[in-house]
Amino acid sequence: MAGAPRPGGRSAKVRAAVLSAALAELAESGYHALSLDGVARRAGVHKTTVYRRWGTREALLFDAINARADEYVPIPDNGSLRADLLDLTRDAITNLSTPHVQAVARSAVALAPYDAAVATTNTAFWTERLAVDGIVVERAISRGEIAPTDPTEVIEAVIGPAYMRVLVTGRPVTEEFLAATVDRVLSGLPKPAKDV
Amino acid sequence: MAGAPRPGGRSAKVRAAVLSAALAELAESGYHALSLDGVARRAGVHKTTVYRRWGTREALLFDAINARADEYVPIPDNGSLRADLLDLTRDAITNLSTPHVQAVARSAVALAPYDAAVATTNTAFWTERLAVDGIVVERAISRGEIAPTDPTEVIEAVIGPAYMRVLVTGRPVTEEFLAATVDRVLSGLPKPAKDV
Repeated sequence: MAGAPRPGGRSAKVRAAVLSAALAELAESGYHALSLDGVARRAGVHKTTVYRRWGTREALLFDAINARADEYVPIPDNGSLRADLLDLTRDAITNLSTPHVQAVARSAVALAPYDAAVATTNTAFWTERLAVDGIVVERAISRGEIAPTDPTEVIEAVIGPAYMRVLVTGRPVTEEFLAATVDRVLSGLPKPAKDV
Repeated sequence: MAGAPRPGGRSAKVRAAVLSAALAELAESGYHALSLDGVARRAGVHKTTVYRRWGTREALLFDAINARADEYVPIPDNGSLRADLLDLTRDAITNLSTPHVQAVARSAVALAPYDAAVATTNTAFWTERLAVDGIVVERAISRGEIAPTDPTEVIEAVIGPAYMRVLVTGRPVTEEFLAATVDRVLSGLPKPAKDV
């Protein structure tokens, strides 16, 4: 894109500082008290920089959560759907389990039905994230490992039960649980012995 | 049990009126403004009745949510695990989609890490609910339909993705999605054609 900032340049450093400050402010002050001024102050940049680049609290938070997910939940490519789904789910839950991200996630659940801006940001985040995560399923289909199927639904099938444990039931998410969940989605429930 | 009130008697009617008033108050006033006095007033019963029987807001809400789940999410027994899981998931999502229940669920997600009483109520609800729902899996194991497996995890596998849609991503939960989720848990992902 013409005029796009070079990655790693000054612009990228400012962006990283602001996005990190946004998550820290959110965890400390909560969604309703979060202000672009406060984020600018914490990041040590001029507030017009933040206003010009992001404009709204929601746009800033969307960018911050997305950037964090891109960094901490990379798309694996192990050549095996099982290994990819396990890496992806483990990284997603590790990310969700950090205090900043979990505070954002819980706020979004609480506020989405009552705040259109939160709902829009949330939908934008998940639409992009599920599509990106679905790449591991698309690759498995291309390799002939599985027949064509909806990639997004496969991602939801493996992360949904773990998300429900973290956010809803509070049950612990262990490595055994993640592996059992992935295996259940890949292979189904155990068949009964034939000769009984 | 000696001295237990007869079902359908006056005591049962009072209980039903109070539990229904508790959910209505919660939806109208929110968790923090909910009081046992307000619930008693709405139910048209004396407040000492409510204090004596439930004691705390959390005990009352636990009982209210549980009673509602028992009534609206009955344990099916179709003689087929697929039909049972589908009925159970559909009823659970229909219940979760009603405004009162959804307000309770979203509040619990938002408050559980910060409020020990909410967390305790929530854990008690889910421990009981997942065990009760798991009966359909235990029956399928007894019938020889599937080999022994963790009943609770099977329930989480079928309701987790739908819960995540309602509470987290906001994606619509259709009958097709529920059926595809149940089939994926039962049979796994579609195998590739052998002769390609």
